[in-house]
This record gives sequence, C-alpha cells and structure tokens, in this order.
Amino acid sequence: MDRQYTSTLLGRAVDEFAKLPGIGRKTAMRLVLHTLRLDEGAVDGFCQALQTLRHEVRYCSVCHNISDTEVCALCANKQRDASTICVVENVQDVMALEATMQYHGLYHVLGGVISPMDGVGPADLQIQSLVERVGRGGVNEVILALSSTMEGDTTNFFISRKLSPFPNVKLSVLARGLSINDELQYTDEVTLGRSLINRVPFTGN
Amino acid sequence: MDRQYTSTLLGRAVDEFAKLPGIGRKTAMRLVLHTLRLDEGAVDGFCQALQTLRHEVRYCSVCHNISDTEVCALCANKQRDASTICVVENVQDVMALEATMQYHGLYHVLGGVISPMDGVGPADLQIQSLVERVGRGGVNEVILALSSTMEGDTTNFFISRKLSPFPNVKLSVLARGLSINDELQYTDEVTLGRSLINRVPFTGN
Repeated sequence: MDRQYTSTLLGRAVDEFAKLPGIGRKTAMRLVLHTLRLDEGAVDGFCQALQTLRHEVRYCSVCHNISDTEVCALCANKQRDASTICVVENVQDVMALEATMQYHGLYHVLGGVISPMDGVGPADLQIQSLVERVGRGGVNEVILALSSTMEGDTTNFFISRKLSPFPNVKLSVLARGLSINDELQYTDEVTLGRSLINRVPFTGN
Repeated sequence: MDRQYTSTLLGRAVDEFAKLPGIGRKTAMRLVLHTLRLDEGAVDGFCQALQTLRHEVRYCSVCHNISDTEVCALCANKQRDASTICVVENVQDVMALEATMQYHGLYHVLGGVISPMDGVGPADLQIQSLVERVGRGGVNEVILALSSTMEGDTTNFFISRKLSPFPNVKLSVLARGLSINDELQYTDEVTLGRSLINRVPFTGN
C-alpha cells in the first residue's frame, strides 16, 4: 500500500532508508521518526561517520582488507606469521577468524567468490594479486577459507591451479565436520560422511 | 562477542548504525558494507535527506502533524471537512487512516498517550491545543482514534473530561470488533463480547 506523506522531506528520508538492504518502508519510517527524536548533533554525527568512511575508505595494498592506512594493521604487525596466508571472501570473514583468536598469520581478501550466475569471474577478484604475493616468496602455507558452497569450491580449485607453479607452498582448507553442539541425527549426510573420513585421534579435548 | 575492526572509520560507522532501534551489530556491519558499494553521491544523498529533514522539520501549527509548511497540506485543504477532528497518537496513524480513504476530516496529533509508567503526562501531549482548537468553534465531532490499550483508554477519558465544556461537540471512538478475516474461535473474549454488544444491522455489505 503506497502511503501519502504529508511532508516531502519526510517522504524523501523514508525513501533513502528504504533503499538499504533488508529495510522495508515500515522499518524505514520507524528509523526516520527515531532520528527526528535525536539531537541535531547526533544525526550529524551519524552522517559524518558514514560520509567520512565512504570518502576516505582505503583497502590494504597487501591483503585488500578495509584499512585506514596504506598497509592495514594486521599486515603491518610484525608479531604475526607472514609465512601463512588465509584466503577469505570478505571483511566479515577476517573479523570472524580474528574473533577465534586461533589464527596468527596474515589474510588475503578476495572480494567474493567465482560465480558465473552473478557475473563474477576470476578477474573481478583479487586472485592475481594473491599469485603475485605468493610469487614474492616467504610463504609456506595458503589456507583456503572460503564458504563450503559450489562457488567456494570452484574458487578453491581455480586458486589451486594458479598456485601450482609454487609446489613448495602448502595448500589447505578449513576442516569440514560437525559444528560444536550439533546432534548427529540432524547432521546432513555429506557433512557426517566427511567428518567420518577425516576423523582425528581422540585426545580428550 | 566483541569483534575488532581493522579500520577505525569502519568501526565508527558500524557503531552509529547500531545505535538505531532494532539494528544490531551484524545488521549494522551489513548496512555499512552496503554503503561502501554505493556511489559516493548516493551516500551523500542519503545523508543530505536525513540532515535536511532533521534540521528543517516543522510541525503543523494546527494539527501538529509533520509538515513542510506552517500549516500542513491536510489542514490547508479546503476540500476537507473542518468540522470533524480525528485525534491520533502519531504521524504513522495519520498515514494509516489516510490510506483507508474513508476519512475526509482533519487530524490532531497528540504525540503519544498518557502513560505514567513512561513518564508521559497530559502536559507532554498536545491536549491543551486540542481544547483551544475546539474552543475556537466550528467543530461538530471529535473522533478519539487512539490505541485500544489501557493508556489509550486513559487518554480518551482525560480528553473527554477536558472537552466536557463543549456539550455540542460529539465525541466518538473507533469501532471495536472482529478484524476482517478473523476467525471467531480465535478472537479474544473481550473483543468478541464488544462486537456482540455493538452489533449492527445486516446490510449485505
């Protein structure tokens, strides 16, 4: 139902919010009316943070992660193990892996996965720069941490072919298996089968 | 889980989005990454619409609806029946009633309902201005279209007392009854009881 706004300013603000993904017109209206209850300074602060990010956003020249500087804080950190590169799809994946506190190497953000359906080919991703990065030497292992989907598997395969000139660089993928707290009977058969094949010695942990 | 942002600009934009009602940190992150994929002009347009609204927002001096002008388009419309005033809580209610296309009178936006729990008293609402508006004459009916809650009922009662010096002004409330498509067996007993007491002649519509 298309509703009439008694104010064109209100209508325009609702239109803008409704353009955001996952936000319908009702939610947009609620958000706009919320901003009307805020201080003018709070609204300006919101807009400034968004515009500053958009105008000044930079991507790390090494790993392509979002960064404030030419080289991001992770790549610049000498404490981290520069001989291991973990290849991920996007910025959220870097944050998810960092949150595990189990990884101390560097990253390489592809910017997506190969997906002909969505018109994403290898040239749209940061694959060539990964090959060049490995080619500069000093890398012992590349961990392919892409989604467990057909697109992810295709991308893994493509990258493994591109890295075949470097036989000394170990290629690995994340383990597939039961999630913590998963119940066996509700686990899909492919995952269950893989977790059986890739079973590991019991250590009591 | 508190995640580290590799960019402080990114972190700040996510913080700002996460302040909005109903938007958590994950959604905020998704919205921020979406804005990074937009043109710079699109982000500026979004912010401009929001800031213009916040800085230039006005409320109609007659009905207190959001308006671009001193008197809103509804109040200024000579085609509408100025002898009927529909009292509503907020701007969304005006839009909901306008969408029915069944109402051709004017509105009065209270800005909420009396709710001691939330610290909202009669003086926080546009009740005095309603009394003055009715006092200027020319009003035949005031429709109390507030929510069917204890707070709404309390506010209805308070307004009816305030309007008691004008015995010629008819006071009415919206009909309570079954919603269209409601099944009898699932309707609560109070609504069902009211719909029985207030039954209307069958006309075939």
